[in-house]
Amino acid sequence: MSATDKVWTAGLVVIGDEILSGRTHDKNIAQVASWLQVQGIRLSEVRVVPDVEARIAEAVNALREAYDYLFTTGGIGPTHDDITVDAVARALCVPVVIHPEARAMLERYYASRDMTLTEARLRMARVPEGAELIPNRMSGAPGIKLGNLHLMAGVPHITAGMLDALTGTLEGGAPLLSETVGCWTAESEVADILREVEKAHENCQIGSYPFFRDGKVGANFVVRSTAADDLASCIDTLCEALGEAGVDFTPGGI
Amino acid sequence: MSATDKVWTAGLVVIGDEILSGRTHDKNIAQVASWLQVQGIRLSEVRVVPDVEARIAEAVNALREAYDYLFTTGGIGPTHDDITVDAVARALCVPVVIHPEARAMLERYYASRDMTLTEARLRMARVPEGAELIPNRMSGAPGIKLGNLHLMAGVPHITAGMLDALTGTLEGGAPLLSETVGCWTAESEVADILREVEKAHENCQIGSYPFFRDGKVGANFVVRSTAADDLASCIDTLCEALGEAGVDFTPGGI
Repeated sequence: MSATDKVWTAGLVVIGDEILSGRTHDKNIAQVASWLQVQGIRLSEVRVVPDVEARIAEAVNALREAYDYLFTTGGIGPTHDDITVDAVARALCVPVVIHPEARAMLERYYASRDMTLTEARLRMARVPEGAELIPNRMSGAPGIKLGNLHLMAGVPHITAGMLDALTGTLEGGAPLLSETVGCWTAESEVADILREVEKAHENCQIGSYPFFRDGKVGANFVVRSTAADDLASCIDTLCEALGEAGVDFTPGGI
Repeated sequence: MSATDKVWTAGLVVIGDEILSGRTHDKNIAQVASWLQVQGIRLSEVRVVPDVEARIAEAVNALREAYDYLFTTGGIGPTHDDITVDAVARALCVPVVIHPEARAMLERYYASRDMTLTEARLRMARVPEGAELIPNRMSGAPGIKLGNLHLMAGVPHITAGMLDALTGTLEGGAPLLSETVGCWTAESEVADILREVEKAHENCQIGSYPFFRDGKVGANFVVRSTAADDLASCIDTLCEALGEAGVDFTPGGI
């Protein structure tokens, strides 16, 4: 594999009792995943863990070593259940310090709103020693970058602002391209075709995603590859094979 | 801790490249989490892994040992990318066999629709040796139960049918109760109150969930406990403290 073929990988730790209780439907997995695709980085694993320092530290340590990048969402706010910074500092064996620039950002933010920087709000300037900040246009509180770690907010539109600030700053590889073909046929009807077409195109993976809509079954077949030519050729072969089998298909998916 | 105090725990492995690519927004984490709450079982960890046999097997082995129950979603359909059964068999070091009852179910299902049980469809009768079936009213293909493992479909409405079939069959403990109080105040304003109230009620956890809606910030505070009395008392104390601080709050949340 040449250097340019390197597949860059990332792990994501989603932190929060509210996700594990079912109270909040996570939106950050899909958001971070889609953003990473564009950066040429593959999301390889996600772990959702509760607001327990040791559990967060354990997941952070496992994934930061396994992948090129690690992202976390949740637990960087001002309240007592926001313990991500403490957990990460523990994982990295560094102390927690007040970041002077974060403190200044919070001071400006609250002063401009005629509010005071209380001790609780100052919690949002705490970082594991050695960290840089990820700017956040949505609220005064920044995200945190330390080595390959990126600690982001849990509220999805604030997470989005932090991802935006990170856009183009992380080294990635060729983005994973994908193209979809859909049909109103049960996936089990065409399972052999999918298997054979995938086998004949070694740089491509085909995913089959069945659905049940308007009282009918159907499926979308998603071909993924980092090579545009291979992707196009695999899609052509797939459409040809579906056509030969008499399956009415829709390029682009249904 | 008496036997009745036992906290029953579960892990969930969500299997599928489509979740990690951002193409599909997962709905099963929230669905499984909410269902487990009612069974008196606490969802303690979720891992999302790709369609790679070794990665699935690794996650299954880690979580089935760490928690009382393990659930998986995804990868039990008829196509080449459905490899959950093989991965779990590998994790448990047992062979994959055709389950005669599953085969009969699929035969009936397809016969009633004037369709044949092809080899691809018969894949859905494959189970790790020793498994029982989880009935599925939505399609012919059953889920799979083996020891503390429960392998379910990835398509959310089919997963729902399988959870429905499992309702009341798993031993659990006291369900985690929760009550919510909301306010149109930044959580940082009341962080001290939350911390102190939680400290004074050791059987309760308070989660703080900020939001930004209609141009205003607010937060919901969710108190969780397995003891109804403690929960009520904690909510009372919290409301009293918010009232004393001049914070206008809404019982039930906003």
